[in-house]
Amino acid sequence: MTPSPPTSSTGIRFGTAYYWEYQQAPDLDRDLDLMVRAGIDTIRVGESVWSTWEPRDGEFALDWLTPVLDGASERGMKALLGTPTYAVPPWLQRKHPELAVVRADGRRVPWGARQEVDFTSPLFRRYAERVIRQVVGRHGGHPAVLGVQLDNEPGLHLIHNEPVFERFRSWLAKRYGDVERLNEEWGLAYWSHRLGSWDELWPPAGNTTPSYDLAWRRFQAELTTEFIAWQAAIVRELVPEDRELTTCLAYQRPALHDVELSEHLTVTSGNAYYLTQDALTRDSPPEITWFATGAAGLFQAADRMYAAKRRRFWVTETNAGSIAGSQLNLPPYDGQLRQAAWALVARGAELISYWHWHTLPYGAETYWGGILGHAMEPGRVYHEIAALGAELARAAGDVTGLTPDADVGFLYSHDSKWALTFQPPLTLDGRNPDHDSYERILATFYQGAADAGRQAAFVTPAQVKRLPTVVAPALYCLSDGTARELEAYARGGGHLVLTFRTGYADEEARARAEIAPGPLRALAGVRYLEYSTLLEPVPLHGLGTRDVARHWADALEPEGAEPLARYDHHHFGRWPAITRHRVGTGTVTYVGTLPGRELTAELFRRQRPTALVTAQSPQVTLHSAVNARGERLWFAHNWSGRESEVTLTAQAREVTGRREPLRPGPLRLAPFDVRVVK
Amino acid sequence: MTPSPPTSSTGIRFGTAYYWEYQQAPDLDRDLDLMVRAGIDTIRVGESVWSTWEPRDGEFALDWLTPVLDGASERGMKALLGTPTYAVPPWLQRKHPELAVVRADGRRVPWGARQEVDFTSPLFRRYAERVIRQVVGRHGGHPAVLGVQLDNEPGLHLIHNEPVFERFRSWLAKRYGDVERLNEEWGLAYWSHRLGSWDELWPPAGNTTPSYDLAWRRFQAELTTEFIAWQAAIVRELVPEDRELTTCLAYQRPALHDVELSEHLTVTSGNAYYLTQDALTRDSPPEITWFATGAAGLFQAADRMYAAKRRRFWVTETNAGSIAGSQLNLPPYDGQLRQAAWALVARGAELISYWHWHTLPYGAETYWGGILGHAMEPGRVYHEIAALGAELARAAGDVTGLTPDADVGFLYSHDSKWALTFQPPLTLDGRNPDHDSYERILATFYQGAADAGRQAAFVTPAQVKRLPTVVAPALYCLSDGTARELEAYARGGGHLVLTFRTGYADEEARARAEIAPGPLRALAGVRYLEYSTLLEPVPLHGLGTRDVARHWADALEPEGAEPLARYDHHHFGRWPAITRHRVGTGTVTYVGTLPGRELTAELFRRQRPTALVTAQSPQVTLHSAVNARGERLWFAHNWSGRESEVTLTAQAREVTGRREPLRPGPLRLAPFDVRVVK
Amino acid sequence: MTPSPPTSSTGIRFGTAYYWEYQQAPDLDRDLDLMVRAGIDTIRVGESVWSTWEPRDGEFALDWLTPVLDGASERGMKALLGTPTYAVPPWLQRKHPELAVVRADGRRVPWGARQEVDFTSPLFRRYAERVIRQVVGRHGGHPAVLGVQLDNEPGLHLIHNEPVFERFRSWLAKRYGDVERLNEEWGLAYWSHRLGSWDELWPPAGNTTPSYDLAWRRFQAELTTEFIAWQAAIVRELVPEDRELTTCLAYQRPALHDVELSEHLTVTSGNAYYLTQDALTRDSPPEITWFATGAAGLFQAADRMYAAKRRRFWVTETNAGSIAGSQLNLPPYDGQLRQAAWALVARGAELISYWHWHTLPYGAETYWGGILGHAMEPGRVYHEIAALGAELARAAGDVTGLTPDADVGFLYSHDSKWALTFQPPLTLDGRNPDHDSYERILATFYQGAADAGRQAAFVTPAQVKRLPTVVAPALYCLSDGTARELEAYARGGGHLVLTFRTGYADEEARARAEIAPGPLRALAGVRYLEYSTLLEPVPLHGLGTRDVARHWADALEPEGAEPLARYDHHHFGRWPAITRHRVGTGTVTYVGTLPGRELTAELFRRQRPTALVTAQSPQVTLHSAVNARGERLWFAHNWSGRESEVTLTAQAREVTGRREPLRPGPLRLAPFDVRVVK
Repeated sequence: MTPSPPTSSTGIRFGTAYYWEYQQAPDLDRDLDLMVRAGIDTIRVGESVWSTWEPRDGEFALDWLTPVLDGASERGMKALLGTPTYAVPPWLQRKHPELAVVRADGRRVPWGARQEVDFTSPLFRRYAERVIRQVVGRHGGHPAVLGVQLDNEPGLHLIHNEPVFERFRSWLAKRYGDVERLNEEWGLAYWSHRLGSWDELWPPAGNTTPSYDLAWRRFQAELTTEFIAWQAAIVRELVPEDRELTTCLAYQRPALHDVELSEHLTVTSGNAYYLTQDALTRDSPPEITWFATGAAGLFQAADRMYAAKRRRFWVTETNAGSIAGSQLNLPPYDGQLRQAAWALVARGAELISYWHWHTLPYGAETYWGGILGHAMEPGRVYHEIAALGAELARAAGDVTGLTPDADVGFLYSHDSKWALTFQPPLTLDGRNPDHDSYERILATFYQGAADAGRQAAFVTPAQVKRLPTVVAPALYCLSDGTARELEAYARGGGHLVLTFRTGYADEEARARAEIAPGPLRALAGVRYLEYSTLLEPVPLHGLGTRDVARHWADALEPEGAEPLARYDHHHFGRWPAITRHRVGTGTVTYVGTLPGRELTAELFRRQRPTALVTAQSPQVTLHSAVNARGERLWFAHNWSGRESEVTLTAQAREVTGRREPLRPGPLRLAPFDVRVVK
Repeated sequence: MTPSPPTSSTGIRFGTAYYWEYQQAPDLDRDLDLMVRAGIDTIRVGESVWSTWEPRDGEFALDWLTPVLDGASERGMKALLGTPTYAVPPWLQRKHPELAVVRADGRRVPWGARQEVDFTSPLFRRYAERVIRQVVGRHGGHPAVLGVQLDNEPGLHLIHNEPVFERFRSWLAKRYGDVERLNEEWGLAYWSHRLGSWDELWPPAGNTTPSYDLAWRRFQAELTTEFIAWQAAIVRELVPEDRELTTCLAYQRPALHDVELSEHLTVTSGNAYYLTQDALTRDSPPEITWFATGAAGLFQAADRMYAAKRRRFWVTETNAGSIAGSQLNLPPYDGQLRQAAWALVARGAELISYWHWHTLPYGAETYWGGILGHAMEPGRVYHEIAALGAELARAAGDVTGLTPDADVGFLYSHDSKWALTFQPPLTLDGRNPDHDSYERILATFYQGAADAGRQAAFVTPAQVKRLPTVVAPALYCLSDGTARELEAYARGGGHLVLTFRTGYADEEARARAEIAPGPLRALAGVRYLEYSTLLEPVPLHGLGTRDVARHWADALEPEGAEPLARYDHHHFGRWPAITRHRVGTGTVTYVGTLPGRELTAELFRRQRPTALVTAQSPQVTLHSAVNARGERLWFAHNWSGRESEVTLTAQAREVTGRREPLRPGPLRLAPFDVRVVK
Repeated sequence: MTPSPPTSSTGIRFGTAYYWEYQQAPDLDRDLDLMVRAGIDTIRVGESVWSTWEPRDGEFALDWLTPVLDGASERGMKALLGTPTYAVPPWLQRKHPELAVVRADGRRVPWGARQEVDFTSPLFRRYAERVIRQVVGRHGGHPAVLGVQLDNEPGLHLIHNEPVFERFRSWLAKRYGDVERLNEEWGLAYWSHRLGSWDELWPPAGNTTPSYDLAWRRFQAELTTEFIAWQAAIVRELVPEDRELTTCLAYQRPALHDVELSEHLTVTSGNAYYLTQDALTRDSPPEITWFATGAAGLFQAADRMYAAKRRRFWVTETNAGSIAGSQLNLPPYDGQLRQAAWALVARGAELISYWHWHTLPYGAETYWGGILGHAMEPGRVYHEIAALGAELARAAGDVTGLTPDADVGFLYSHDSKWALTFQPPLTLDGRNPDHDSYERILATFYQGAADAGRQAAFVTPAQVKRLPTVVAPALYCLSDGTARELEAYARGGGHLVLTFRTGYADEEARARAEIAPGPLRALAGVRYLEYSTLLEPVPLHGLGTRDVARHWADALEPEGAEPLARYDHHHFGRWPAITRHRVGTGTVTYVGTLPGRELTAELFRRQRPTALVTAQSPQVTLHSAVNARGERLWFAHNWSGRESEVTLTAQAREVTGRREPLRPGPLRLAPFDVRVVK
């Protein structure tokens, strides 16, 4: 992989969201001093309080932040300043109730939380621009300001307001030219849906046409991107050139294309929330939720963030005390905060910023734990973070400009995710669709690669070249162009892993009217005319292991490929479950089912390149990255509560601990330990 | 049973729905030739594409079907032509949004699927009549046209539009005369619901009165019947007299009384969808869904279709590749398509028409598999169907005019189903009502009869006479008249099986204010003053077996009946669970609980009449039917993946295979095999 | 405890709801004679039939009740007359659809049940007052009338009608003075919720602010109280002074503060419904529903009723045959009706009135079983009740003026319940909040006390003094004043049991910004800075037993307290789970988790005071109460289907059976038996 240029010159930024304005009895100096003692050098400020910036329509109160920024400056800290547009003040809600988002069912999102408005409305934009100009104009040039966060976690709603739907019709008209073309492309003869004119298009609420839904999702993601780009252009006018522009991405948002949106940012930022305690182990299977689950889930989240710009990224929010509702308080075990931070650093994080400094005594997030709890007293979490802050500071020289290594690429397809959300291939209960099917299939293969000790990167088809292995999981909406790129990769010596559903549909989410897997058939050396849901796991053997096939079975008929695994089943046993095809100087593996964890890992086993550290224990992960000096660092995590060890194959130096050289041989890992060597 | 007159003179029609107009790259001749090679002689056309027939208000495009009908004619095939009224075009939706069905919650069904309109509206009827007259007027006389399908799967919604509710008030006024009568009949003193005038009647949304709900359900079913009758009258004017009139019934529709509706058809048609693979075995317990489950479920579905007119019926839709959403792809195991087809034939199907020719690449039903898959290439399913087509053709002479045998009658009561949907007797989770209670109780007894090797027929009280056994499961809304008919049946020598809830209420779904089971008390020779839900199964013994009682226990006090089974329980043990009462020359069995599968079967065990084929294996079913020549055919199915055998008690000839005589003795059944002998 | 003055001078009233007006073929004399034979001396009449009292707007029909009241009088029976305001007639619904309650989602409660109207509306009040004046004016002075029930089961809905919301704004303005104060108190800087004026307050539908929700719940409960007080004032004018004023409380109603409401009544009445059959045993764990579950649940329900006025109470509704929907028919086992009645008597019930005389043949409650079933014939239930009536009559002298004993007080906090409904601490499925958390925690500790043989009373902080033990379970919204009262109690020699969440928040449901448990920290001798959800039970040992910790763990750091129990866990093991602190002459136990049943009981074990009866069996409960003569009665229940025994420590007399003295020693209890001795 091509290393990206480092965006920061010295070490890892260590930060926290800091909401002075929320406090009942604020003590700015005490807070900032406590931060400094914890190694915190960055604060995130101001993004949630439009009603504090502008208490009444057109009346601004901008000075309250100055002491915070000054206090930061005095201590050598930096601040990330947020535009407050995601949290609309009551006076604006009251004045313009028509701004409230209309949902698919025609009802408006009620006021009382945040992100209730149709941000595409020109009316809203007038108010938003005014407050942005005031806040950023006033503070954006402050020497403490490192950059500006544009809005926050955008894309929460699919917006069904009438003007948005009208805009969708225009968007379609521009894309398809005339309705007759749309009728043909979307197959609208079916069920009498042929349109006579654009105004006959039905609203999304009752839609059952997959191509329509995919268009609607693309359109909605574009609205979000356009909104952030609009803010970026305004802010760019207001701040010095060296200021970063970013926003905090919540990756599970329905109206978000993180890669396209990131084109308008100078750095990608995002949430990296994860389930802690027993769920943050190597044993945790991937769960599909807004939390990362398991060690693999955490690495996957980081790799997604890195991917958007193929550059180091900022973690603007990650667990401090405990993150979730009142019923889920799961403060991390000793060591887990440190593990997570080093995992993010290993995968390219340049800022790790906790959400947030202190737990709020009121509001929806009363049980989203801060570095300080409700008591505002340093406790176990503060002390762990402080120790970590010191450790990061000691390692600063070594971790500057880190570029993560990767030897498995994953293709992520927003289109396929959206299409398989609408028509999911999997069922978990034997009856109802699993709308998270795409992410579940992806996470299964990601975890398999991780289990095999591989390091992953999310890549586009254009970026696959130098990776020894590339996986295209459930790449349902496959264009002919991408198919050609994948073919070139495999023929050129790569190992391409294709899965069921990959290539089955085209860019309109239509099943391809050709023998599957369509444009990949010759490449994979297999074809299939049917496939089956597996309501129960079916025994599977191959690659030297016995496991189960789950959820799906393509009826693979080899056309040149050799079988790698087979079902033990009276009906499915006639078809191979996994095949391998040699093409050019490369290989294509086709996986027609969702294998169990063990067999999935076998797909990714290979000779590792010579490594400084090797591991035998399944509870340990190893990752590597190259720093600005060109040194390769190795990150060894023990995710379990039991002791473990790794092996040094040569003399090494420890980045996280004492600096005396370590001799080759076993290196001990305490429970929940991480050691970083070079 | 009286054999019905055969409606078709030669063999079984073999068909498929064929939607040329949906195809991206149509090749009519190839399609029709492939059909011919598969023995397909009937196609179903045109019912879903109003927007193709009439692309703009009043502009018709009628010629596109001609090549299809001509192509069929040339090949000796017939077509079933559908009126397209269930799928309303966008221009009509746009012009008259007020046509959309209003649901109980006051919200309109959104456009985007089909069957969104209030078909009772005079405004809608004007448009519907116009398109019917155009389509049927143009094509109904084509020599290929076998008949006309009127609308499709009607009765999807309970329609709450204001004019419908007003019509309901008039319907009530006509039925009850004045509100005072209604107040008395429905008990409206309760909770201050007494009406002073008809306009005080509350809408169904908040209704809690059982009699009201039953009236509303009856009324809604009548609306559906009236709509189909209205179409029948129009179409009758337009087509030659020999054309059949039918519609495709989906039996789970909420606003459907299939028997009353069928009075307006010349032949009953319907869906026979079933779960395939492991679910299509003898072991599958009945599940209540729109799929038939298990072999018994499939036979039950067929017997329901036969019942409406007590004549042979058409299966207008049944599984080809796989039927359901994207998450449930279950193409049948080898042999299962053949098994299902012969099962339907054995029970009186005269047409077996697959849904549908080719899987659609787009639309809501992208994963409803056709005979050809998305690839449009003949595969395993096509070849199985082709082999079956050939087999049916060979058997044509033998299967002409088949009348299924039956020795157990089941009374099906729409009123009881509706009443027990509103006030269900069962709970599956120990807390919430099981709104499928009626169908669950029915299916349990149907399966018991099937397990005992009995052949069933759904009958009306007037049709019970010649059947040795008649079951009245959960016949909650029992009229005095029906009670008298049942009494006559039993006293005349029949074996009448009554269950809990039978006779408990009257025709207004009111609990009868008399000692239960009310009008059946003397007949059954038992009474009860209380009953209990069984939250857990209770051990039960009787009829030489040990089993469990589930869900319910009537506290039966014999008044002449003898106990057949008892609960092993400190409280319920004092009451028999099942009793038998000799009356006249007959017997009445009263079943006060829902017994386990084994004991339920024991209720139906009896000496079989001399049979050509006998079976020992529980995985095998035997059915018989008499053909037009008066010969009795025997259908032996092996529903499992293991080999099995049956015994021929005399020399026989095989209808499905070679025609040499088979000697008495064992007859082998391969896995998933069916053999038909005479 | 201070005994309360007896409200009735002779024995226990025995009653039934009697709805003559609902009957299809009424026979008043037969009904009343059957009642007399069953010992029934009280009927509850007239509360559900406004449309019978006033069939048309302003036309009254009041005479129909006279024969019932006269018939009662003639037989020495009394009647409780209800105002019919909870069941609004169709003509009023039709005339004023705007009266229908608006729900949180903006939709109106549909007509068809009862309690559909916004009872705060002045318009409604005009109609309600008119019918109250007519009905009570006409019959309230009848010599049979014992008292008047005001409305029925009030507080079903949180009312979101616009005028109610406006009133809420005024209520807030009065309470907080100005919006700036509200902004501060509720923390409205958060998410830009700061208000500029009262009219900017958002409606509850989208609210996410805990303090707002708590205010809304308090306000809604006040509306209910005000409505009943308003009726009480009207009725007081209309009836002689000796008539009781009450209403029937359903304790699970969302808009109800039973204690505040009861201030406007002369006697508290309520429902005591319970699950019967196997669920009515000592083994049943508490379930949170509108049924009481298990013996402990039944006693808890009774203790809640006693608590409101600390006086004997009326059970206006309790199970006769079976109570629930059509799918849950659970008539009690032999003996259970008697057990329940004596349990209620033991805890202070002065009236036990069954719901209801006969099961209705129609209406929503068709399967709510009466003393007579649908058949209107005396059956098992009638005969059990008749035997019980005779028994109560024999015991009349002994049970007059009973005051229940208690040695454990429980603090019940409506505020905490509401706050923890909005932000629940528990999850049952590891993901979603358990909105019944408060009641679940309470019931767990109540059952623990019951398991330890303790007798409970619900008390206010002001009433704790003489009780040896007081529990403050999940007392989340703790005021400083209450904290001081609890401190005084403990220092003065009491045993105070505090649990997790107690004292964590203040009266605005804000987490306290101080080290937890805030104002109780010094008293408990522990502090904690963090806490954790336990997704799985964690082994726990202490108090001589091994058990599990469930759902929650406070990270307790002793500051003077000694550990009583510890977690067996690598992480949580560092903190004690339960601690004990000696303060003054008393003790404070702090329970940082939800222990299993055994360990919870251990918290309450103590030397019993000398008792007339002692029990060893876990299936037996013992309760005591002091009658008007100052004699202490002992109630020994055997809740299981197995025989058991208790031990008499001195000579005793049996209240429920023969009156010869019983000798010290074993006293046998049949299955489902209860024996009452003195």
